[in-house]
Amino acid sequence: MIKESEQNIAHMEYAVRLAKKALGQTHPNPMVGAVIVEGGKVVAEGYHQKSGDKHAEIIALDSYTGTPKADTTLFITLEPCSTEGRTGACTNAIINSGIKHVVIGAVDPNPNHAGAGVKLLESAGISVQVGVLEEACREMNLIFNHWIVENRPLCALKIAMTLDGCMAASTGHSKWITGELARKDVMYWRRLFPAIAVTQNTVSSDNPMLTSRLGDEVSCSRRFVFNRELRDLENYKNYHLFSDEFRSKTIVIYGAKASRDRIEALEGMGIEAWEINESEDKLDMGEFLNRCAEEEISGVFIEPGAKLATHMISNHLADYLYIYQSPKLLMDKKGHSLGRERFSELMDETIQLVDLKRDQFGDDALIRGYLK
Amino acid sequence: MIKESEQNIAHMEYAVRLAKKALGQTHPNPMVGAVIVEGGKVVAEGYHQKSGDKHAEIIALDSYTGTPKADTTLFITLEPCSTEGRTGACTNAIINSGIKHVVIGAVDPNPNHAGAGVKLLESAGISVQVGVLEEACREMNLIFNHWIVENRPLCALKIAMTLDGCMAASTGHSKWITGELARKDVMYWRRLFPAIAVTQNTVSSDNPMLTSRLGDEVSCSRRFVFNRELRDLENYKNYHLFSDEFRSKTIVIYGAKASRDRIEALEGMGIEAWEINESEDKLDMGEFLNRCAEEEISGVFIEPGAKLATHMISNHLADYLYIYQSPKLLMDKKGHSLGRERFSELMDETIQLVDLKRDQFGDDALIRGYLK
Repeated sequence: MIKESEQNIAHMEYAVRLAKKALGQTHPNPMVGAVIVEGGKVVAEGYHQKSGDKHAEIIALDSYTGTPKADTTLFITLEPCSTEGRTGACTNAIINSGIKHVVIGAVDPNPNHAGAGVKLLESAGISVQVGVLEEACREMNLIFNHWIVENRPLCALKIAMTLDGCMAASTGHSKWITGELARKDVMYWRRLFPAIAVTQNTVSSDNPMLTSRLGDEVSCSRRFVFNRELRDLENYKNYHLFSDEFRSKTIVIYGAKASRDRIEALEGMGIEAWEINESEDKLDMGEFLNRCAEEEISGVFIEPGAKLATHMISNHLADYLYIYQSPKLLMDKKGHSLGRERFSELMDETIQLVDLKRDQFGDDALIRGYLK
Repeated sequence: MIKESEQNIAHMEYAVRLAKKALGQTHPNPMVGAVIVEGGKVVAEGYHQKSGDKHAEIIALDSYTGTPKADTTLFITLEPCSTEGRTGACTNAIINSGIKHVVIGAVDPNPNHAGAGVKLLESAGISVQVGVLEEACREMNLIFNHWIVENRPLCALKIAMTLDGCMAASTGHSKWITGELARKDVMYWRRLFPAIAVTQNTVSSDNPMLTSRLGDEVSCSRRFVFNRELRDLENYKNYHLFSDEFRSKTIVIYGAKASRDRIEALEGMGIEAWEINESEDKLDMGEFLNRCAEEEISGVFIEPGAKLATHMISNHLADYLYIYQSPKLLMDKKGHSLGRERFSELMDETIQLVDLKRDQFGDDALIRGYLK
């Protein structure tokens, strides 16, 4: 049974929209959407809402009240799981449903499982088409795709810079490098990531909220503040991060050498905190990411200053980079920019961005990709 | 008489293609294409070939052998001139032709003349439509548009840089920042501009040809070499710029303080040279551009190193910037990048790129615009 490819794309697009209803809510699981189509119409649908809940295809199958016909087709944005997890293998449920056509967006990103679900379905006599709207289906789960393979959080850095690579003027002034549309796009990523992180410098100078404001909806991921020496605690009551309705989501990361009385002061405020080892007067960011992994935090969106960004990129601690670039030149060698820790003799020694995506927000551009 | 707008666009696209047959050959005049359409078909056409030659619309009218019908329409990429130049006002020729419909791409970029041609045609009873494919028609003449308003050459800088703003590693190594497709695009601009310029440093280290190699065609604009102190003359015979078939197009720019014997050595080689004043141990680039203006060189495409680029941008000597940006990070503070001469405290003090255009060449991007 061959369908119009355009129709398939439209149905898969709808499944992606369904999946994204749970934007940022499914970690460490992926976002997945599923629709059952008969006679060109969607007759049942589902999406995965949060970890531990039913998988998308199960919700769609459960709400399907008909009897599969020759053309009944299940569309799923992600290859169904073939192993018994908390919720039972989805491939079994599909086979038992009697549906004979399955269209899949992206295969399982785990190389050990990729294609296994497809094979199981096919060996049960189901026709399977893979790769419809693949890029969108794969890309929306960039955090899960990394987590499931590496068992570590996707560590992403968000940097706004001028064309000549400046993140702030010599005075530290950086409001604003990019325009409103680009800053609005950041809200999407803040919502997608299970955790956001900034330095105490940023808290002290900008007093950010780090919430995601999309339309009328305000959401808030876990919020980390890197404050190695536990500076500026006396002002904590004035900062949004420690006083707003989401204050229980804020976690302070301090160094093992922080003074005892400051640690006690922090504890007295009832603020959650993690102690992390230090190396060369810096927080050991590798240990921080390990701790995130232990806590099943599958991704961290860091909005760093130039120093932290340079340290993390140079030491291969960052996996992914978001560069919001505005068509301006600061032209100031004393401005804050990347690059204090490396010394490169040749252009071949550059760090590459791969699986590159570009977007435009007014005159600003977003360039993002994995660091390789 | 109203025509299908899509048809109009197609005819104007053809006129633009005609105009671009003279890519880079019409300076200081604009590229202009014209077609006469009857019954939906092109029955006559023309394009301006070089300064002093007939204007595009005149060539089209001259080759038109019919008698204008009710639907006969003249398409011109640029508003026809209404003043008597070397070739007579084109508006008169159009009025005398008996053609009653004119479609124009872009209006005259000279604010003193813009719309004058349209008015003359309209007052002669001709219906005029303006702005079909306007952006393409305007944009192809970015050099002329600047020249005719400012009476100075469009001074453009071409810079290839990494995402973090590096133009070369600390060793000077810069081959290659961008990929083949981006480097191929440079050939288009080298062909468009009437003059290209590099520093002696570039000649000594890269021995460039600075020709434009588009397909099988090799062309060569005027080539300037900035060599303030007339260094490295002993190697000139080995460099392409002074030995290839286009060597008569190479002009050396030296400073007024260059030593007498070096100037004589250069003269002995039969190489054309311009003496330019110096200020603060630099060539006075303003004077250089004035001299270009005197010689009716309407645009210079400079491929500078970081120092010259910084000097020209900081001192508002450059009008236009081409940034070829590759998705790499050099992360080396000792790398060569823009920005030695300015000190900016605030983000508002940035230099903006306006009338921004973005293109992609593989993973690389071109960002270009006027410096404001």
